[in-house]
Amino acid sequence: MATTVMPELLQPDASESTGHPLDGIFRPRSVAVVGVTPTRGTVPYDIFYNILSSGYTGTLYPVAPGKRSICAVRAYRYVVDIEDPVDMAVIVFPADVVERALEQCGRQGIKSVIVISAGFREVGPKGAQREQRLKDICAEYGISLVGPNCLGVINTDPAVRLNASFARKMPAAGRIAFLSQSGALCTAVLDYARAKQIGFSKFVSFGNKAGVTEIELFDYLHRDEQTDVILLYLEELRDGRGLIEAAQRVTRGDNAKPILAIKSGRTPQGADAAASHTGSLAGEDPVCDAVFREAGIIRIGSIEEMFNAAIMYAYQPMPEGNRLAIVTNAGGPGVMATDAAVSAGLSIPRFAESTTASLRASLPAAANLKNPVDVIGDARADRYTAALEAVLADPNVDQALVILTPQSMTDIDAIARGICRIHEQAAKPIACSFMGAADVHSGVRLLQAAHIPHYILPEWAGDAMASVQQIRLWRRQPIGQPTLLPVDHQAARAIIDSSSPGYLSEDQALVVLEAYGLPIPTYRLCPSADEAVAFAEQIGYPVVLRAISPQIVHKSEVKGVTLNLTDADAVRGAFDRMHHHLASVAPEAEIHGMLVRGMIPDGYEVILGAKRDPSFGPTLMFGLGGIYVGLFKDVTFGLAPIAQATAARMVRQVKAYQLLEGARGGARADIESIEQCLVRVGQLITDFDRIVELDINPLIAGELEIGNAVADVRIRLGD
Amino acid sequence: MATTVMPELLQPDASESTGHPLDGIFRPRSVAVVGVTPTRGTVPYDIFYNILSSGYTGTLYPVAPGKRSICAVRAYRYVVDIEDPVDMAVIVFPADVVERALEQCGRQGIKSVIVISAGFREVGPKGAQREQRLKDICAEYGISLVGPNCLGVINTDPAVRLNASFARKMPAAGRIAFLSQSGALCTAVLDYARAKQIGFSKFVSFGNKAGVTEIELFDYLHRDEQTDVILLYLEELRDGRGLIEAAQRVTRGDNAKPILAIKSGRTPQGADAAASHTGSLAGEDPVCDAVFREAGIIRIGSIEEMFNAAIMYAYQPMPEGNRLAIVTNAGGPGVMATDAAVSAGLSIPRFAESTTASLRASLPAAANLKNPVDVIGDARADRYTAALEAVLADPNVDQALVILTPQSMTDIDAIARGICRIHEQAAKPIACSFMGAADVHSGVRLLQAAHIPHYILPEWAGDAMASVQQIRLWRRQPIGQPTLLPVDHQAARAIIDSSSPGYLSEDQALVVLEAYGLPIPTYRLCPSADEAVAFAEQIGYPVVLRAISPQIVHKSEVKGVTLNLTDADAVRGAFDRMHHHLASVAPEAEIHGMLVRGMIPDGYEVILGAKRDPSFGPTLMFGLGGIYVGLFKDVTFGLAPIAQATAARMVRQVKAYQLLEGARGGARADIESIEQCLVRVGQLITDFDRIVELDINPLIAGELEIGNAVADVRIRLGD
Repeated sequence: MATTVMPELLQPDASESTGHPLDGIFRPRSVAVVGVTPTRGTVPYDIFYNILSSGYTGTLYPVAPGKRSICAVRAYRYVVDIEDPVDMAVIVFPADVVERALEQCGRQGIKSVIVISAGFREVGPKGAQREQRLKDICAEYGISLVGPNCLGVINTDPAVRLNASFARKMPAAGRIAFLSQSGALCTAVLDYARAKQIGFSKFVSFGNKAGVTEIELFDYLHRDEQTDVILLYLEELRDGRGLIEAAQRVTRGDNAKPILAIKSGRTPQGADAAASHTGSLAGEDPVCDAVFREAGIIRIGSIEEMFNAAIMYAYQPMPEGNRLAIVTNAGGPGVMATDAAVSAGLSIPRFAESTTASLRASLPAAANLKNPVDVIGDARADRYTAALEAVLADPNVDQALVILTPQSMTDIDAIARGICRIHEQAAKPIACSFMGAADVHSGVRLLQAAHIPHYILPEWAGDAMASVQQIRLWRRQPIGQPTLLPVDHQAARAIIDSSSPGYLSEDQALVVLEAYGLPIPTYRLCPSADEAVAFAEQIGYPVVLRAISPQIVHKSEVKGVTLNLTDADAVRGAFDRMHHHLASVAPEAEIHGMLVRGMIPDGYEVILGAKRDPSFGPTLMFGLGGIYVGLFKDVTFGLAPIAQATAARMVRQVKAYQLLEGARGGARADIESIEQCLVRVGQLITDFDRIVELDINPLIAGELEIGNAVADVRIRLGD
Repeated sequence: MATTVMPELLQPDASESTGHPLDGIFRPRSVAVVGVTPTRGTVPYDIFYNILSSGYTGTLYPVAPGKRSICAVRAYRYVVDIEDPVDMAVIVFPADVVERALEQCGRQGIKSVIVISAGFREVGPKGAQREQRLKDICAEYGISLVGPNCLGVINTDPAVRLNASFARKMPAAGRIAFLSQSGALCTAVLDYARAKQIGFSKFVSFGNKAGVTEIELFDYLHRDEQTDVILLYLEELRDGRGLIEAAQRVTRGDNAKPILAIKSGRTPQGADAAASHTGSLAGEDPVCDAVFREAGIIRIGSIEEMFNAAIMYAYQPMPEGNRLAIVTNAGGPGVMATDAAVSAGLSIPRFAESTTASLRASLPAAANLKNPVDVIGDARADRYTAALEAVLADPNVDQALVILTPQSMTDIDAIARGICRIHEQAAKPIACSFMGAADVHSGVRLLQAAHIPHYILPEWAGDAMASVQQIRLWRRQPIGQPTLLPVDHQAARAIIDSSSPGYLSEDQALVVLEAYGLPIPTYRLCPSADEAVAFAEQIGYPVVLRAISPQIVHKSEVKGVTLNLTDADAVRGAFDRMHHHLASVAPEAEIHGMLVRGMIPDGYEVILGAKRDPSFGPTLMFGLGGIYVGLFKDVTFGLAPIAQATAARMVRQVKAYQLLEGARGGARADIESIEQCLVRVGQLITDFDRIVELDINPLIAGELEIGNAVADVRIRLGD
């Protein structure tokens, strides 16, 4: 057990406030641990002991009913008995007592509370009720609450040194903040990071996020001078729009800091598992992707990848571009790194003439002077440093990766020291992969001490560098406020307000779309064959008849559509035949008439969809239509309302964009007009809460001169 | 430096022969190292010293011109001076002397040689010539050659203990054989494996594979009683058909052993890098995939994944199915593992009632009893063992993964010991992920010592288990000899033998396809409009006219096709119009007439392609046709000729198969007939070496009653 380091007495102002409401959590001048027990190896004891022994610069009060002192520190029966002002309380009582303790904190004027205890929303409806009562108390007293069901909070800032958690050890100080919804994951991450010599600025387990969420934490860490990168492990994304706004503030602008996140529950089975262990609703995964993309949050697959990317960003300068030079003493790993880097989106440039000349001068004849440079298995430090200097000086190179395999003649430490020397002067990022384990150990330590990112596998270096590219590109990407196009809100409202829940009939849906400026072919709902013929004559042949009935949602299933009618007789015949047929196959359907419209010219079939997601609110979908949509899932998502720039990105995210561009020998579609349609659909679902689902499937995207047309639409209203 | 262990004197028969020609490489009773120098830290010295000091059970002879002894062992001037019989020579001379040394080995009757030296094919044409001369000498004397340009060979069998390599240390003995085309990678792998306590049976770096290739090595390792799993790192796949046959023999049947392989050069840039460092031709990557699939070789992305899968297979029983139970003390990692396992193809089953009851009895109320089981953060060994026993007993569970995050109360070593105890009795595979590093270290060692696979990240366990599933499925998958359908070989030969290099004209190509039983619509080449009309009347309208000219390959570019001609006038008009148009846009084209045929009924557009690959010989491609082929790359490859079973698999590998099945509301295509077409195209390109490329694009796949029809074909002949 570590030596107990006692806080210095009477040092209430050791940590200066930054003026942020979460200062109470991160920089409290005094902390009460409420519910401490004297038994070592229990969470209540461990938390108290961790604060006491980690060098906390403020004052610590144990609240332990029935105990005179804990670890020789005078204890209090209730938090209200403490005679001094208390900035923050850590509640470690069993779940059923937490409510009373929190209430007392509120009465005592404590504005910051961490509830470590489990037994809330994650255990079912009864726990959810308990959690709701905590929320109510926080609202009443204006308390910032972290938890419940969490590991706690750590701040390594020397002015504070607070380990208000039951993690086994205080992590080293560093420039990375880690936020996790899973408490247990935190302990593994701390242990893992220690082995990799990675330090943290702040470490927060926010559990059920009944109070403070990742959104407030982003805001705090954005201002935090100790933090350069924010890592997030998230199980439940509740407020998509709020997350986007908060993350954009953090990840853009002068003081931009990247956010790298793991969102678990990618697969339906994973989402089920997440739901059953935290009671969280995971949300649809492609929508999460869309939220992260809009937020500028880099989505990462695993803890390993997350730290791989974080150290690359935190330790190295931002590269100017994605061009990577590789220097290796082994061809195979060079090839594997090339494969991985290219797959991740980096490029492997050709060198300038001068670089090749300089490599030729310093490497043996058998060396490969092209990128990846092979300095050959028997290379020692002189070749490595000469090659690394040459490629870093190349104007076509933005960053370098050094790969080493331990041959019997390889002077590993000397090579590491050579790289460190070059790194001191280099303006471009350098990463290393000294492959193996024991043989390369001391070399790796040298690199890590110099903050040169090291990866066991060269492939991981490529992935990390690619993540940094994502950060770089995000910072330059135009973002904007949602575009607001002029629409006839009244006309749409007239239909929607007067309709009952369920699907709008097609003619009504078309009125709504038209009011929002979507391209609707000229049409008329004709109750009789005579009227249908008269309208057809007016707009010209060929025409289409579509049966309109509130009971018929899927027209084609009941032969409720007839295409390509070329004259009056055909229209009349089809009108009667359809009426007759519907009377037999859907006798309950009340037929309002036939919608008559012209044939839509050929074009590409695309889908525009909108849906109200329980976690994210209104979402948009865009994709390739027809039979291929189900086959290739060539669709992308966004949160409505959207900016024109976002619409443009969405359209370009699907593979079918190549078709729309005319790349496969076809005509170029009117892409801007498709983007506008997306913006308009986003506006529509945002403006009307009652729209639960809207599908334009397909929108026929015609050539530039012809434009687009809605070929079919379904709008479903809620209560 | 390790203590020098001298071979026991006069022990010529310590290693018993297995009767295989490669025994000379792996179990030589005597070894000459040819070209030793007395300078430590050089490859020639290190190789000699490694054999001498690793406990080799045979007799070792240094050949070192001008030296009386090396490491006190009497040296010889030339290999021919050795008075005793020598089984194997390791040549370490510089490249330009290797040829002479090899010649001497041949004359001395040495049948097994490893050439370590570099400076051959990998350095360019001059080196390639040197390599060819080595091949010639080997052929003359019947020598089995490993290398050149390699690290050497290691056999850990206690009866042999041969480290004929310049790896720093002899690996531990184990059940895994590692074969690598990259020598430098080997040293990294050895170091890495040592850190993970992984041992090897054989370790072979085969370099430029001028003699022995992976194919002979497969054969040897198949019989090798020390080997359970074969790992392969390959840069260059030369003989696809040979590889398939050899690998199938190893990976199927009573003595089946899995082969896991990394093939680098996945991306075009990676392939370039591979080419420039070993002079190897990488071959097209999707074709490599096809070869591996047919061979039953499990393709793996990285060294880490390869060993992850290898230890899972080597240490655990083969599971009955893909159903995985997860036991964790942390919800988050449980969710992440679920995501990864499901993505990799495993399933997360529901438990039987009895399992849930038994979990309820032994776990606290807050625990999650569903899969993944959450034993909660404060779990100690009792909960872990109870949960693991319960889930392993469940009939719906085929294997289990135990995840542990180190909480302050977690008794890590006790949990590890509990798992080891259960493992001793268990018939189902168990894997563990104790997350973190230092805290879990001793627990991990306990697991590793008991041969329970351990993974730093739980996701990796899922990937490893999924690879084992691939092995299991492969063993059950029907494979067969290439199917031979009756064809009219003569008729095809008549056309092909009489044609010059380049594209066959369409009418000739159709004759060839027809001879091979492909579904060709009735057609006739009509030199005049009169004949065209007469033939159209005979087959019935509507018809199609297609211009036939040896100079016109892409008909549609020059308006050489007219569709849907419904009467005699239309045929006549089109005939004349096309003639006229072609005369103006392609005046040099010699028009043989118009091919007249009926319209092909609607159906799905698919592509059947065949190509002669420089590395693999005849290959087949199948995929979705039309504009989508380029967009979604929904294609798959195979090596021709193929079995009907392979054709069936190929057709099912593309996503468009769902369409062909009628899954999207369309009609079901005649899938068996498509498979037959694939078999026939495979036969055709196999039978005629002069066919360089053949594309049926599209084949129109109609409904069952209608069948398929070749709508367009191009066949290109070589010299």
